[in-house]
Amino acid sequence: MPGKWISALLLLQISCCFQSGNCGKVLVWPMEFSHWMNIKTILDELVQRGHEVTVLKPSAYYVLDPKKSPDLKFETFPTSVSKDELENYFIKLVDVWTYELQRDTCLSYSPLLQNMMDGFSDYYLSLCKDAVSNKQLMAKLQESKFDVLLSDPVAACGEPTTLAETMGKAEMWLIRSYWDLEFPHPTLPNVDYIGGVQCKPAKPLPKDMEDFVQSSGEHGVVVFSLGSMVSSMTEEKANAVAWALAQIPQKVLWKFDGKTPATLGPNTRVYKWLPQNDLLGHPKTKAFVTHGGANGVYEAIYHGIPMIGIPMFGEQHDNIAHMVAKGAAVTLNIRTMSKSDLFNALKEVINNPFYKKNAMWLSTIHHDQPMKPLDKAVFWIEFVMRHKGAKHLRPLGHNLPWYQYHSLDVIGFLLTCSAVIAVLTVKCFLFIYRFFAKKQKKMKNE
Amino acid sequence: MPGKWISALLLLQISCCFQSGNCGKVLVWPMEFSHWMNIKTILDELVQRGHEVTVLKPSAYYVLDPKKSPDLKFETFPTSVSKDELENYFIKLVDVWTYELQRDTCLSYSPLLQNMMDGFSDYYLSLCKDAVSNKQLMAKLQESKFDVLLSDPVAACGEPTTLAETMGKAEMWLIRSYWDLEFPHPTLPNVDYIGGVQCKPAKPLPKDMEDFVQSSGEHGVVVFSLGSMVSSMTEEKANAVAWALAQIPQKVLWKFDGKTPATLGPNTRVYKWLPQNDLLGHPKTKAFVTHGGANGVYEAIYHGIPMIGIPMFGEQHDNIAHMVAKGAAVTLNIRTMSKSDLFNALKEVINNPFYKKNAMWLSTIHHDQPMKPLDKAVFWIEFVMRHKGAKHLRPLGHNLPWYQYHSLDVIGFLLTCSAVIAVLTVKCFLFIYRFFAKKQKKMKNE
Repeated sequence: MPGKWISALLLLQISCCFQSGNCGKVLVWPMEFSHWMNIKTILDELVQRGHEVTVLKPSAYYVLDPKKSPDLKFETFPTSVSKDELENYFIKLVDVWTYELQRDTCLSYSPLLQNMMDGFSDYYLSLCKDAVSNKQLMAKLQESKFDVLLSDPVAACGEPTTLAETMGKAEMWLIRSYWDLEFPHPTLPNVDYIGGVQCKPAKPLPKDMEDFVQSSGEHGVVVFSLGSMVSSMTEEKANAVAWALAQIPQKVLWKFDGKTPATLGPNTRVYKWLPQNDLLGHPKTKAFVTHGGANGVYEAIYHGIPMIGIPMFGEQHDNIAHMVAKGAAVTLNIRTMSKSDLFNALKEVINNPFYKKNAMWLSTIHHDQPMKPLDKAVFWIEFVMRHKGAKHLRPLGHNLPWYQYHSLDVIGFLLTCSAVIAVLTVKCFLFIYRFFAKKQKKMKNE
Repeated sequence: MPGKWISALLLLQISCCFQSGNCGKVLVWPMEFSHWMNIKTILDELVQRGHEVTVLKPSAYYVLDPKKSPDLKFETFPTSVSKDELENYFIKLVDVWTYELQRDTCLSYSPLLQNMMDGFSDYYLSLCKDAVSNKQLMAKLQESKFDVLLSDPVAACGEPTTLAETMGKAEMWLIRSYWDLEFPHPTLPNVDYIGGVQCKPAKPLPKDMEDFVQSSGEHGVVVFSLGSMVSSMTEEKANAVAWALAQIPQKVLWKFDGKTPATLGPNTRVYKWLPQNDLLGHPKTKAFVTHGGANGVYEAIYHGIPMIGIPMFGEQHDNIAHMVAKGAAVTLNIRTMSKSDLFNALKEVINNPFYKKNAMWLSTIHHDQPMKPLDKAVFWIEFVMRHKGAKHLRPLGHNLPWYQYHSLDVIGFLLTCSAVIAVLTVKCFLFIYRFFAKKQKKMKNE
């Protein structure tokens, strides 16, 4: 009998959309890496609320693991690109972006990176083509009659179209930032900010990790992770990092996959994987050394941890620049930083209360929103499914061709009118002048 | 004993801010008329949640009645303007705006209305001066240490300042519209939309009114109200209106304060006051004839009732134009409309399902928001009190002088640089040219 009660309760919990008759069918065009972590949080919640979620997975995707998401349906389709090819290209792209470029000035431009980015774009175009030219797949999707498509626009894919058209067609944009990370700027009603959607309270650490963290005493710990995409670091750089970490009285947990550096101090432990969110939410954590990926930065904001940013590629430079401007981070350049630079940055962020105060204020802003990021995301996805769109939030400017959008047709018309009037006026005056001149001449002649 | 329980429950209900220690002191600089109805809804909710609300009331305010708001504290201060003077001026202003002007074109300009508006502005300036130069009042307010000021910017008042400065200083803007009424446009993060904040479900009608409404049978009823500010209508106009209303099979409830028109039909009842929201929420109501004030329009949107708009002054023309564009209203011109115009408009809105369908869609949009308008308003007011502002939402552009805001300093600097370089280049070439010319001449002479 107790078993039945539990099932009934579970059923109540997950059947909210069955009750209202609003259960929907969601199709997802995903991206891998950190992007997948964000959208997965939303998809899990949608499934929890009773919706049916189908993820369209190119066979070349090499990180996205269906086995880790048993509640989602995966529709894997064969691609002309292999997993290895895509992975190798991506590693090379990140490497070029991080190490080959002089990104000290915002005006820097690299033909090499441009080539790599074009190649990246070509890969995703071919994945898109593999999907839309797969007749069997398309027929199956059409039969499924989905209510909404969640698409990650990093690698947009569509019916023949342009990026601008695809962007204008979206009913709703869910942006993975908020005013804790962003500076205030104008925004449209069909845009909502769900930065930190994946953040959650810390869970307890594994026993041996907790023991290590507790052994730091009043000094606390530093968490060091440059994300999941950068695994390599030169031996020299790794030795410099290890040396700097060895100088501080804190214990350090370092996510590092290379050869153990000779200068590694007894206060530093190296891990192939870290429970990053649980560590950042630990009361002993004093600082976070990060590459500045949106997810890591949001976990630090969520838990109010000041940062040492070592940005590498993508929007990481922007994220860290924002955190520096808001007084919650200092930044270092991965190519030029010396061991003492890192040591000084660690001392500054750990010992100067300025950084902790600002990080805590960002955390306050993040938690004190009218609605939680996940609730906002789910609300708008369900809204679009309920009402087959959100047209009342979409500016009609999207429908205009560029010359109408910039009022060039109106300006052109007015200029033409002015020109015609000017010409006619001059012609009129000339005509009258000649008429009288002629008359006068005639009078003189008589 | 049951009495104690009830008190305890009440205490729980109203003590939410006592528990968190976040009870605040709110000062209000109000406007009268429909504006007061909106802000009163918010103030009542703030009091309900345990905050202390003090309303600064100029003695000349003639509508705002403290007796109707026993839970709010009123700080009434003497003004150099009398109630009668302000009331007479306002009636005249509304009259000029409504009847004297040819507002058929958006380019119309009236020196008379300009004069009246300047006078209106002068009256509110004098009310503001009476407040800030009242040393006793100012001392009392300063001692009270308020946490937040809610100010209606229609008649803004401040220490010596400009309107632009006052606007830039606001931590948060609560706008009494939403995307049901507005068209999508860019907006800043410190702006939230609380249109319809005063709307609530309909209450039962008085017995005799309900009987009259029910007697309409399947035809239903029409509600006719041109708001609280227009009481006068020429006898001719009133007769035309009454004639048109007498032609329709619906029963009509007409808010009208003048002499009973000779053409009044047996289907029409005239009332000095109508429970407008309860009538608009009544299932028998088919259409609403309105002057297009924001509150009336929002009550119609809330209950999904199509409108015949007869806009008169202020933003009423805009409101009705939006409702017409969204297919939920037809519009009439109060000066030029004939009795058959009104009759045809009534037939169209009542019998063409197009208008009801669109009004219901606006109602759906209004009700299907992530948060209720009142909850949004209270959240942001409490946020500003909790954190002494909302600086992270306020664009720093407000701090810039106009020439910096438009980048004129940068453009000026770049233009100067270009000019200097151009002049130097020309000078250089001239110098070189002269040098060689001289040399050549010298060579020739030798």
